[in-house]
Parts: sequence; C-alpha cells; structure tokens
Amino acid sequence: MCGIIGIYDTENRDISKILYYGLYALQHRGQESSGMAVNNNGFIDYHKDLGLAHEVFSEEIINRLRGNVGVAHVKYGTNGEPNSINAEPLVVGYKKGALAISSSGKIINAEEIREKLEDEGTIFATDTDAEVVANLIARFHKDDIEMAIVNALKSIKGSYTMILMTTDRLIGVRDPYGMGPLCIGKLGKDYILSSETCALDTIGAEFFRDVEPGEMVVIKDGKIKSIKSEKIYDKKFCIFEFIYLARPDSKIDGVSVYLARREAGKLLAKASPAEADIVISAPDSGTVAAIGYAEQSGIPYAEGLIKNKYIGRTFIEPTQELREQGVRLKLNVLKENVEGKRVVLVDDSIVRGTTMRRIVGMLKSAGAKEVHLRIASPPVMDPCYFGLDTTKKNLIAVEKSIEEIRESIGADSLEYLSLKDLIKGTGEEGVYCTGCLNGIYPMDIHKN
Amino acid sequence: MCGIIGIYDTENRDISKILYYGLYALQHRGQESSGMAVNNNGFIDYHKDLGLAHEVFSEEIINRLRGNVGVAHVKYGTNGEPNSINAEPLVVGYKKGALAISSSGKIINAEEIREKLEDEGTIFATDTDAEVVANLIARFHKDDIEMAIVNALKSIKGSYTMILMTTDRLIGVRDPYGMGPLCIGKLGKDYILSSETCALDTIGAEFFRDVEPGEMVVIKDGKIKSIKSEKIYDKKFCIFEFIYLARPDSKIDGVSVYLARREAGKLLAKASPAEADIVISAPDSGTVAAIGYAEQSGIPYAEGLIKNKYIGRTFIEPTQELREQGVRLKLNVLKENVEGKRVVLVDDSIVRGTTMRRIVGMLKSAGAKEVHLRIASPPVMDPCYFGLDTTKKNLIAVEKSIEEIRESIGADSLEYLSLKDLIKGTGEEGVYCTGCLNGIYPMDIHKN
Amino acid sequence: MCGIIGIYDTENRDISKILYYGLYALQHRGQESSGMAVNNNGFIDYHKDLGLAHEVFSEEIINRLRGNVGVAHVKYGTNGEPNSINAEPLVVGYKKGALAISSSGKIINAEEIREKLEDEGTIFATDTDAEVVANLIARFHKDDIEMAIVNALKSIKGSYTMILMTTDRLIGVRDPYGMGPLCIGKLGKDYILSSETCALDTIGAEFFRDVEPGEMVVIKDGKIKSIKSEKIYDKKFCIFEFIYLARPDSKIDGVSVYLARREAGKLLAKASPAEADIVISAPDSGTVAAIGYAEQSGIPYAEGLIKNKYIGRTFIEPTQELREQGVRLKLNVLKENVEGKRVVLVDDSIVRGTTMRRIVGMLKSAGAKEVHLRIASPPVMDPCYFGLDTTKKNLIAVEKSIEEIRESIGADSLEYLSLKDLIKGTGEEGVYCTGCLNGIYPMDIHKN
Amino acid sequence: MCGIIGIYDTENRDISKILYYGLYALQHRGQESSGMAVNNNGFIDYHKDLGLAHEVFSEEIINRLRGNVGVAHVKYGTNGEPNSINAEPLVVGYKKGALAISSSGKIINAEEIREKLEDEGTIFATDTDAEVVANLIARFHKDDIEMAIVNALKSIKGSYTMILMTTDRLIGVRDPYGMGPLCIGKLGKDYILSSETCALDTIGAEFFRDVEPGEMVVIKDGKIKSIKSEKIYDKKFCIFEFIYLARPDSKIDGVSVYLARREAGKLLAKASPAEADIVISAPDSGTVAAIGYAEQSGIPYAEGLIKNKYIGRTFIEPTQELREQGVRLKLNVLKENVEGKRVVLVDDSIVRGTTMRRIVGMLKSAGAKEVHLRIASPPVMDPCYFGLDTTKKNLIAVEKSIEEIRESIGADSLEYLSLKDLIKGTGEEGVYCTGCLNGIYPMDIHKN
Repeated sequence: MCGIIGIYDTENRDISKILYYGLYALQHRGQESSGMAVNNNGFIDYHKDLGLAHEVFSEEIINRLRGNVGVAHVKYGTNGEPNSINAEPLVVGYKKGALAISSSGKIINAEEIREKLEDEGTIFATDTDAEVVANLIARFHKDDIEMAIVNALKSIKGSYTMILMTTDRLIGVRDPYGMGPLCIGKLGKDYILSSETCALDTIGAEFFRDVEPGEMVVIKDGKIKSIKSEKIYDKKFCIFEFIYLARPDSKIDGVSVYLARREAGKLLAKASPAEADIVISAPDSGTVAAIGYAEQSGIPYAEGLIKNKYIGRTFIEPTQELREQGVRLKLNVLKENVEGKRVVLVDDSIVRGTTMRRIVGMLKSAGAKEVHLRIASPPVMDPCYFGLDTTKKNLIAVEKSIEEIRESIGADSLEYLSLKDLIKGTGEEGVYCTGCLNGIYPMDIHKN
Repeated sequence: MCGIIGIYDTENRDISKILYYGLYALQHRGQESSGMAVNNNGFIDYHKDLGLAHEVFSEEIINRLRGNVGVAHVKYGTNGEPNSINAEPLVVGYKKGALAISSSGKIINAEEIREKLEDEGTIFATDTDAEVVANLIARFHKDDIEMAIVNALKSIKGSYTMILMTTDRLIGVRDPYGMGPLCIGKLGKDYILSSETCALDTIGAEFFRDVEPGEMVVIKDGKIKSIKSEKIYDKKFCIFEFIYLARPDSKIDGVSVYLARREAGKLLAKASPAEADIVISAPDSGTVAAIGYAEQSGIPYAEGLIKNKYIGRTFIEPTQELREQGVRLKLNVLKENVEGKRVVLVDDSIVRGTTMRRIVGMLKSAGAKEVHLRIASPPVMDPCYFGLDTTKKNLIAVEKSIEEIRESIGADSLEYLSLKDLIKGTGEEGVYCTGCLNGIYPMDIHKN
Repeated sequence: MCGIIGIYDTENRDISKILYYGLYALQHRGQESSGMAVNNNGFIDYHKDLGLAHEVFSEEIINRLRGNVGVAHVKYGTNGEPNSINAEPLVVGYKKGALAISSSGKIINAEEIREKLEDEGTIFATDTDAEVVANLIARFHKDDIEMAIVNALKSIKGSYTMILMTTDRLIGVRDPYGMGPLCIGKLGKDYILSSETCALDTIGAEFFRDVEPGEMVVIKDGKIKSIKSEKIYDKKFCIFEFIYLARPDSKIDGVSVYLARREAGKLLAKASPAEADIVISAPDSGTVAAIGYAEQSGIPYAEGLIKNKYIGRTFIEPTQELREQGVRLKLNVLKENVEGKRVVLVDDSIVRGTTMRRIVGMLKSAGAKEVHLRIASPPVMDPCYFGLDTTKKNLIAVEKSIEEIRESIGADSLEYLSLKDLIKGTGEEGVYCTGCLNGIYPMDIHKN
Repeated sequence: MCGIIGIYDTENRDISKILYYGLYALQHRGQESSGMAVNNNGFIDYHKDLGLAHEVFSEEIINRLRGNVGVAHVKYGTNGEPNSINAEPLVVGYKKGALAISSSGKIINAEEIREKLEDEGTIFATDTDAEVVANLIARFHKDDIEMAIVNALKSIKGSYTMILMTTDRLIGVRDPYGMGPLCIGKLGKDYILSSETCALDTIGAEFFRDVEPGEMVVIKDGKIKSIKSEKIYDKKFCIFEFIYLARPDSKIDGVSVYLARREAGKLLAKASPAEADIVISAPDSGTVAAIGYAEQSGIPYAEGLIKNKYIGRTFIEPTQELREQGVRLKLNVLKENVEGKRVVLVDDSIVRGTTMRRIVGMLKSAGAKEVHLRIASPPVMDPCYFGLDTTKKNLIAVEKSIEEIRESIGADSLEYLSLKDLIKGTGEEGVYCTGCLNGIYPMDIHKN
C-alpha cells in the first residue's frame, strides 16, 4: 500500500533529513524500495533505490538533496521481481517543467488507460500507476497545474492517494472513496502531507487534519487551499488498514488504530470466549488484539513467543532440510509460559495459514495443553483489487471451511471476529471497503 | 558480555550455517563484531569482522567455512573504538597447532598477566583477554592440551566463560564462581556449547545441562568429559543477566529468565503499588516486568509506547537541533492509551536516566495525568568490573538521591525493587554477584 | 561519444558475457555508466548503473541476464552531474511491446523535438536522445517496426548511431552523414553490431562490413537485411575519432586508426622537423604518432614519461596544496632519458593545455635541455555540436595564438599538424566532419 | 616482493595522504593487500585489508589516520589463499609500547625460528615474517630499541628490507647482502624511506641516498643516524628487480632500471639479431627492452599488441569455453602492423610460457610471416627462495630445451640474453643474486 510523505518548507529546514525520518516512520508500509525528490529552485534532484530507507540513503546523499519542497516514498512490493526502475517518487519533465509523484494504492483502470495512451504513441519507462497519471497530467499542460490534475484524475478509478511536487507546489490527493489514508500536519507554520500520523509524531509535527475523500490540497508558500472533486462518493476506507496495515500509534480519519484493534480483541473475547490459562499473541501483529482479549476475558496476558529482532534483509535463509531439523529463526516459544497451559492465541488475520500452523506446532511441542486460536478479523475470502498482495489462490479460507482450517493448523478451537464486530470496534459504520472479507467492493471490478 | 557458541559434529552437518543461526539467536549479547572459525581436518579457517552476524557473513563465506568442529562469537563492545582486530574467535598457531578461542566476560588480572608476559618478551596483536589466555596455554604446550588449559586458568581471575577449539577437541570452561552463563545442548548425539539456551532452541537442539562453575568440558568424537577446577567457589552468577542481559526465553542454571522478570514485576507491584489506570512498559526491556506488575496489581496492561523496528546500524542519527525540534526516532507515544490516564511505567533498570527522562516527557506531553515510574531492580550504584559497560561517572543513582532522580526524570513517583525481592524473584538465594547494586563483589578488585 | 554493441544469437550462446566483454573492449568510449538489456522470449530484462562495466556487472547479474538478443552501452559523460537514470540502453514499453535503445552521438534538434512532443503532452523520464527517438518511434506504432524507425529518423538531425532491440529484431542505424562509426561482425553465422572493430576482435568475431551512412540494418533469425535512408549525404565522419577517440586497433570504414595516427606522426615530422636527441610521447594518447614521428625523423623513440596504471575511479585526488608540494600522480618523468637531452614531445591534440603545461614543466625540471612540442592534429578552434565534450570557453587555441600557447606551456617550440596532412594521413579526402578544427560543419547548427 | 614506505614528519604534513600516494606508486610491487599505520603521540592507529590501495582506503579512513610518523605496505601475494590477517604493517604491542613493521622479501630461516619460539610458548596470529621479527625484538625489550633490533636481526637469514615504526622512531633495515631495494628520500628537511625511488618522485620528495646492505637507519625528529651490521657481505642484489619487478622510472643503488632494460635490449640485438621488418614488445613488460632492440638493430619499433587498460580486480573471467571461442581480453593484435611482416617480439622473461604461446598464436593468426622471439634475460631455471613466486614445477625452461620451448610457443626463432650481457647492461658486476638463472645463491638454502 506504500508510504508517502511530502513537505513544503518556508523556514530553511533540513528537509531531506525530515523526509528521511518520515520514511523511517512509514517503513512498515513498504520495504521494497525507498526514494526522495527535492525541489531546489525549480531543479528537482532525487535519489531512489531498492531497499529500506536506511539502506538507500547515506549521509552524503541526504546532504546532497537540498531544497524547499520535497516528496518521498516507500514501496510495498506486489507483483514480480523488484526493479529499481519502479521505485518512486517518479520524476519526469513535461511542458511545464519537472513533476514528481509519490503514489499509494492501485488504479484499477490503469492498464486500460495505458493502452489508450499507447495507442496515441506514448512510451512507458516503468510499470507504475504514477507514470500513467503523469502522462494524463501532461496531456492537460495547457491548463493550470491544479486543473490539469483535476482533469487527469477524472479518468482514473481505484484506490489512490498521491503527493505531487511541481516546480512551485506540493499537492496531495485522495480518491473520491477515500480508500487509503492521507493526512496533513504542521511543522511550525509549514504544511506536511503523510500517509499516517505516526510520521508526524516522529518528525515532531502536529496533526492538522485528514485529507478528505475526493479532496485535493495545494500547498504553496506556507498556505494551503482545498479543491474538491466534482464526484465524491460515500467513504469506503480499507478495513485492512485497521486490521493489519497501519501502525497502532496512527489515527486515521479520527479513529485510533490501537483502540480499534484493542476493541476488536475485546469483542472477540465476548463473542468467542475460551476456557484458558493465558492469552498470548502472535508477535507482533496480534499483540494489541491479544491485550484487548485478555482485558475483556480476565485471563492473564503473557508472552508465549519471543521474536528475534536482529533479522536483516540480507539474512541467509535456512534450507528446507535445516527447517526440518528444527531450525526456527524468527520465533521461539517461552516454554515456561505455555507448558501445561491452556492457551488463547490471538492474531490479527490468517491469509495462507502456513506461519500459524508452525506456531501452533511450536506451542504444542512446548507442552501447551490446548491452543485456542482467535482471529481478530473475519476470514479473508476474496482478493483485493486495490493494492493488497492477496490472490484468490493462496487464501486458505477460500479452499477450506473453518473447521478444516482449524484441523490443518492443529488448533483445539478456532474462531474469527465477525465483520459486524470488526466494524463496531472502529466506532464507525458504513464507511469501509470490506471487499476482501465479503466480496462487496465500492466499484465495479473487471475480475481476472 | 558477548555471546559464544561451539559445535562438535560427527554427522556431516552444515555447521557454519548452524553456528550462524546460533549467533543470530545470541546477537542481543553483542553487536560490535561477529566471527566464526571451523576446523577442517586440522586446518582452521575463519572469518570475522565488525557488524551483526547477517552483515558479516554472506552465503559465499558461510559456504566456504566447512569443517566438523566450529566455534563462533558475537562481541559486546565496551572500551574504545571498535576495531576488527579484536573480533573473536581469536585464532592463533602455537606449538601444538591451531587454537581458536571465543570468550565472554572479563579477566580482571589480564593487564597484570599481560605485563608479566611482556616482561618475558611476548607481543600482543589484540586487546583481548583471549590473547592473554592463548599465551598462557601456549606456555604449557608440553602438557596435554587439557592440562595446559587447566594450568593456564590457574593464574587468571575474573568472570569468564570460554569455548576453545583445538585441532581435535571442543572445550568449554566456566569460571570457578560461575559468573557468566554457559550451557550444553545436544543435536542428535552431538554436543553443542552455548551462552544461552535460546540458541539451542533456535537451531533445534535439546538442552542437556549447564556447565558448572569451575568446570571444564571436553568434547571429542561425540563424547563429553568433565574436569573440575581444584578451586571452586560459591556460585556468584551475574544478577544483571536476569535483570537485562539474557533473552527472556533462556533458562540459566535452571531458572527461567522470563519467570524471574515477571516475578520481579509482581514483587514490585506488591512492595510499590500505585493508584493508576494502566501499566505500560519501556519497550522492549521492561515488558516482562510490566506484565507481571499488571497481573499482580490488577491494573490493565497496555502499550503506551511503540518502538520502530526498522532502525539499522547504518542509520543517520538526527542532529541535536532536530532532536530539539521534536524528532523522535525510536519511540512514539500511543496518545489514546495515555491521555488523561494515570500511568505506571515499568522498566528493568535505570543507568544514566537520559532515555527515561525523554520517555516520561513524551508521556506527559501526550496528556498522561500522572506517571509512576517503577523499576524492576535496585539502583545501580557501583561499577561492574566484569564486563558490563557501566562506569561510576555515568550512574545517576550515584550522583542523585532517589527523590532527585524522580525530579530530574519528571515522574510523579519513582520506586525501585529491593535487592531482596529481586533475588527472591529468581527463586535462588546467595548465588549472585550483586556488585553493581550493593558494592559486594565475589573477589578483590583493584579499583581504579 | 559512447560505445554500443548488440548481438542476435541463434546458437544458445552466453550472450550477456559476450556483451560484457564487448563493453570492456569499448570502455574507452565512455566511463560514466554501463548497461545491458537482453530479450528473453519477448521479455526484456536489463541492468545499468553508473560505473565501468566491471563495476556495474557482477557474475550474479550477468548470469541473470539470459536471452537470445541483447544490446549494451557505455556512456561518455558530457553534461551535468552523472545520473544513473540516463544510463542506457533505454528500455521502454510501447504499443508493440518492449523496445531497448543504445545510442551514440548527438541529435542536434533533440531539444526542438522534445518541445514539440511536450506540446502534445509527452513526459520525459531521462535527458537522453534515446528517449526522444523512442517517443518518435512509438508515434508510428501502426507501421511495421522497420517503417516506424524509418519514419522516426526522418525528423532527427545530427550525428547518431544506434542499436535498437525490439521484441524480435536487432536493428542498427547510422546517420545519413555517417558521422559516427558502426560496424557489423559475424560470430559463427550470427550477426553482431558494434561501435568499433576492436570489440569484434575481443569477443572472437570476424569483421563483416561497416554499416553505411544512412543505412539501417535489420537482423533476425541469423539473417540481415539493409534499408537505405531516402536522403543520404556525402559522408562526414568525425575526424576526432582518428585523432583521439577510437582505439588504435580498430579499423573504421576501411581505415586503420593506428596507421592513420602513425602517418600523422610521420607527416608531422616532415612538415615540422626538430633538432633533437629523442622523441617521446605524452602517454598514452600520443604514443602512435610519436612512433611515426621517430620513424620518419630518424630520431630515436624513447619513453620519457611513465604512467601509473593502478589509478581507479574511487581514487582520492590530491588537494591543490599537495599538488603544489609536488605530488604528481599519473605521470613520472624518466629522468635518465630526458636529462640533458633535446626532446621532441608528441601528443595527439591540445584542448585546454593544462596537462601539457605540467608535463613540459616536469621534463624541464628533470633536466631536458629543450622541449619541442609537436601536435598530431590542428588546433581545436571551434566547439563540437555532436557529442564531444569541448566548449568554446575552455579551448586554449581560441584564446591564444600558437606563440602564446607555446609560451604558456613553456615549450621551446610548438607546431601543429595541418588539417590537410591530418586528412592525408587517413588516406581518404572530403569525407570528414572537421567542424572543431575549421568551423565547417556538415549541417546548420543553431549556435548557442 | 612487496612495497614499503615510511615517513617521519616534523612539519605537520598530511602524512596519511602522502603514504597513500606512495603506496599507489609502489602498487606494482604488490596487489594482494594494502595497509598503513600512523603514530599519533604514541598511539598507533592503522587500517589494512585485501585489495589495491585505492580500494582499501577511503577518504574517510585516510582522514582518520593522523600522526607524525607513518609506515605503509603493499603485499605481493605468494602462498595460499589471500587472508586479510596477513596484511601489513603488522602492529603489535610489547613491553616498550607499540611497534609497527612493514617488511619485504623472505626470511629463509623464519620457519626454524618460529618453531624455536613456539617451543618457548609463543603464539602466532599471522603467517608473516614480520611477526617472527616482532617476537625476536620483543625478546630484547630490556635493550634500547635500536640494540633490540640489531640483536633480533642477528638470528635471521634471507632477503629482507623492513621499515619499523616504534613509539618515537622510524627505522629502516636492509639485509647484509642488500638483496632487496630500500632508499631514503627527503621531503623538505624530513626523511622518507621507500622501496623504490619512483615513490619519492610521486610524492614530490628528493632522492637522498640508498640504504646500504647491512645498514640500519634510525630517523627521529628530523635527524637520521646509521648503524652498520657487524657482518656485511658482498652485495647480492636481486637481478630480477632489473628484469621485471622494479618500475622503469626507479633508480636502484645508482642504476637506472630503464637504462638497464634498454641496454639489455641493445645487447640482445647485438648477440641475437633477426632479419625482420618490425620490433614489437609484449606489453607492458617487454617495452623498454624492445625499444632498445629496435634502436640497436635499426629495425623500426612498432606496437603490435594493444593492451586493454580497463581491467579491474573484480573482472569476470571468461570460461574456458569462451576462451576457446576466441574471447581474448587483455590483448588485441594490431593486424595492420604485423600482417605480412617478419616480427621481432621482445619480452623481459618467460616463466611458464602460456601467455607467450597465446601471443605468438595471435600474431600468426593476424598474418605475421615470421615471429622471432627475443627474451631480454636468461632462462629461469631455478626457484627463488627469497620471495619471488616461481617454483621448479612451473618453469618451462626446466622441463624443455630452448628448441623445445620455441616449438611449444610456435615462434620461428627464440633467443635469450646471456647472463653476462644481462649483468653488463646494469653496468655493475659481481653484485647480483642470480639464483633463479644459474642456481648460485648467496647463502645456503635448505632446498625442499
């Protein structure tokens, strides 16, 4: 789903460092590539490559990237081989000068538009949606840049949030359904745009407000203005942001991710209680819901699995042989806590089920008497067409009944949170895209 | 305190990979350098450098390191500039062939012995204790290697655990006070030596037993034998291993680190209760004690601080200016959880107090009504002479009274666990070195 | 001027390695960046980056790049900061699939076309001429690819040679003036295209023939066909290729570079004799002409300057202070050879004069009695608009008379080869662009 | 044979940069590893690793290495796998403080001394002679450092030159036979020690004098003093330094390497003339002798082979298959120069003959009518025990007669320079070790 951030500075700040720390705060949204572009008096300099922010940027590069407007990006890798050419921000030149785009989400008619553009003789250097958008904007170069973007967006459909940097402006857009998150912060009197509020906290900025569905905000010289899309639909925000994607310390459209997850845990405890001695989580994704489950049920919360925090991207993976010999890298069981115990194991979701099978096996080997698996979201039954990396083929809930899943994972019981409770936990109703959970998408999908 | 691991394989395993995963499990014991030496028919090949295991070892190097006996090391950096020359295992040649040593702890009369050896015309290529020990062993080369080690150890004093690899043996030693941890595992019928049991779990080995204080174990061809030191003192195990150093999923001399920390949290709640709405921990070090505190007190456990997990060794640190502008990298407050709340904040220990001051400030800014700081160990009042990186100068508890510390940190109340309760939590009494907490060391120290 | 090479393989060769060795042979034509694209059943994979071929390509990457058609490139850096985005081959998608372009030379109306394309809404991701050409080709996608290229080329003007790779063809083009070199080789029954014949020798291919001015050759399945441009002008090959750019072991349009340079040296000796004891060259560029000068004049050839061959791209340059203290990195004088001698110093050309001043100074300090500077080409008086990195500002011959140059360099005499003799040395007349020597360019230039 | 350089600075120079440029000038003496140690008020800091100087040292490291005395080293790789642990300078601590040693040559009784030291309980961390010497010096630590070195050297035998850095002195030693080169330069009023004079030229220093056989020079605070060994033998300088090892622009013990090689070429032309059209060299080693041969014979000198100068250490070598298909990387024939010609091909020496066979083959394929091979030194018939990497097994002249060598190489004639003429060319008689040419070594060798 990618992480994006942009700043328009009027007070001579070291913006490349600020963006770098912002990327670091948004790194959970994408680990495939990192990039940054800055505008230095109309000349856009940039750097991007495969890797985490701290791998891609050296002090030397950060010091080179000087300017008063900047935009940065971390990419969530979805299809095919990672290729540095697809790293963002996309930086291109067009009639009106340079344009940089950091995008998140998925434009579902991008392929269609791409074909139309190709019919007109357009070439494409990358596989990104951002390049499609840039071409559309360039088509309207006779308009003012703001109108050009408005016109360009008219033809695209899907889930998208974008931060664009022109030669003199920083522009944020959120699709008319508001499917992805985008917020505005203030650093002194200057404005910042970011996927999540946690990046604002990290760089010492204040939360200002969320960008609204179908809104475009234009920032220039310390001023902000808002342009609304002609068509704005009922908000359909991605429910998976609350389940898994967003950081717990972020607040999206006024809802705290942490509180929504804890509430999901509590509602799960109410609807699906278990006779057990301890509540543990599958680290780190299940932790908040597990705490909620424990609080509601009165069963003590404990750590049952310890995660090794030193794993790096260049780590040498064990061979299948070594795995079979018992080498287990990321997680270790806390035998003392689970031996002889009836355990409630809480996780945020099950997609393919492989990791969960291994975890339950570890708990049982360590002497857990019973393992009651509780999932703080409904079964993932349908693919996401808006950027999340799930395909119909891998979804365990499509292939198996809940009882079959339980059996295959080896748990003593398995219960999922209902969609109704999941939504209730967020405090808002009717505002979510729940396509992957119930097959109801906010717009027509050309299913493949 | 360093992490050490060794294996004597008789079944043609891929031991360099096993050691690599072992180092990864022990990485919390040292991040300065990583190294590994393997014995291939009497020829010792090795690789070591500054950095984490996954940075130092590439697949190519791991594949090159082939043999049936191997020993590895991660170094806890203490004094001066990190220098790759001090990485271990130390590999040297002497009269009887090659010798590799992975050591942990601190020999307190190393300087004295070094001077005596220099008087005799010895040169030193490194600053390590291991080189001192290697020289002592080489002096006794006319003896059998086991006797040579026994004789060499007679003159050294301090806290040490070592794994030595000779041309045909793997040897583990633990000092006569048993100040540091060393355990034996079994992988099939083969023996493994490791600082902590968590490494055994990671590589799929079974725990066999701990090496005893003053014991030397010699492993050869799938057989193990034990040689006891003439002088064995009452065990004086480093209490800080339970407070902070060891991984919670390890068991040392029969005591679970997790249970000891949870019990510390419980005893802390009993002795130092607080009127509060939630219990949170300073991640990650205070988490287990915080869970115990919450369980005992009945106050709900919550996450109040979120730690960014993407920080790398090559990360660009913020300037002081950016820090003052509010850039906070490693931790973010969960405002929703702390706003308007009375918070119990639990950590394992306070050494210098700087981080704690920042955390309490963050909590207060986020709207915490009260912050009651509870420390699951007594004040650190005295230096450690046995390898822990604390010096009298930096210890806040030496310079300030508890009330002054509280004030300087900005907490509403501050209480420490008593030494008595700390020890009680481990379930064993009279077996600890508590020098840094009460100035009572197991042996005479030439204080500087 | 860049180096380009392409291959269409029908015999399952390891083409990425062949292209890699080809780039290595063409490395003298460009050191800024290196790149390669291969066609694997219609899917084009590629890798390119700043640096020499052996720095950019690892064995792993070369092994990954598998296919039956391939094209590669080394870039001669001209304007501005090196940026990896401008590395070639350019790889884009358009209506008919993937297209890769390796280009050399300079399209002088590229800026004009770029503006026209931007008017139509086109975006540009790079600063390369190749991207302009790709856009033009894509405009004609309804035509067959060969006609599309023919049509695209109609609007471009300048010096260019290109190798294009489509989903099923390898295509070479040379501009209608034939300003840059491009030849065809055979490897078994397969065809290869290359900037220079030295690359054919290196990879073990036979020279087949040169691509003619205004010719396009299309290679597919081991067959070659030729398409001639409607407009073909009198050949105007860049004379600087013979002076400096090409490798001496290449043969261009039937003329041996070595023989042309040696002949230039001989004619220089005839027209500008000197009373001297030895002939030396400024290594390595002046060596061939110096050998010719020595042979003609009967004055013995000797080495007067030794060049250090270990300099690397990452070398730390000396500060100005160290230079003034006498640190001289690349060249050392052979005092024994020049002391007390009257020296003829031969070089291929003088552009800015700084290096030559230093060299003459070194020779004088080493005791040379006289230094007679002989240049195997006429003064560079005008800028090159076709890709050579000379601007009017830096040209010493523009600012100073020959006598002033001599004085500023400190030589005892200075003579240049006449343009007539230079051309005579190549054995062909009326076929050269001599713009930088006499201001006569083959086409109208919009001078800046 | 390694390259060594040291400086004692009294004028606050940037000595790490000066040493770096010195290493670069001496790089031809060793490409396995590079290293440097500097003395900063008694504290010795250093850096060394496998690789060329420009690969091992970054600007950051060079800037870190600050001090007033420094010593540096490039290692010529001989035995076994390159291992960074054997890089020099060796830096150790002993009773009197720190000691750094850069050594060159081979101590032939090092193994014997090593065993004796091991008997006394000494350990060794490296395989270097320098560590043996350091141990011997440390044994005499009660003496003044100068006497300690004098005493240590009494027991070693072989070819050696060394630069030692103590806490307050820079010391150069040359063995009593003067087998290897070592000279003294002056930079302002400060002294420099270097393997060859070319490094002095590079860093802008003046040649002062050569260190004499059996001499030890001690430099301190801008003063130099000389200590002579009790035993000084007739000088036996390595003749291979003149044949191949030294750089042509160096002068050793008063003899110019260039002039010696040119004279060898001339004497070769006199003794072994050939009816031919051109004289060419095997680049770069045969160039100087070829120039001499051409001058003496009156046959024109020409370039017949062009060497690619872009090869790097990380270059991907062609497979045997590609070699057989004609891929030739380092050299290309200048067909124009050799086709139809009778060629004299001059090289400095033949060791194994493989490269020469390939070169002659290339010349013949390119159409050379005859190839007359002339070698500017006698056949290499015996191993070198003093550091040169030749073993009896690989020597073609041991296995074959000259006629057989000629046949195997494919030359039309083959002649070697006589030993008498070789020595005559240097202008000095009776002062050379010619062991590898005639089996007469200056000292008893325990032949293996």
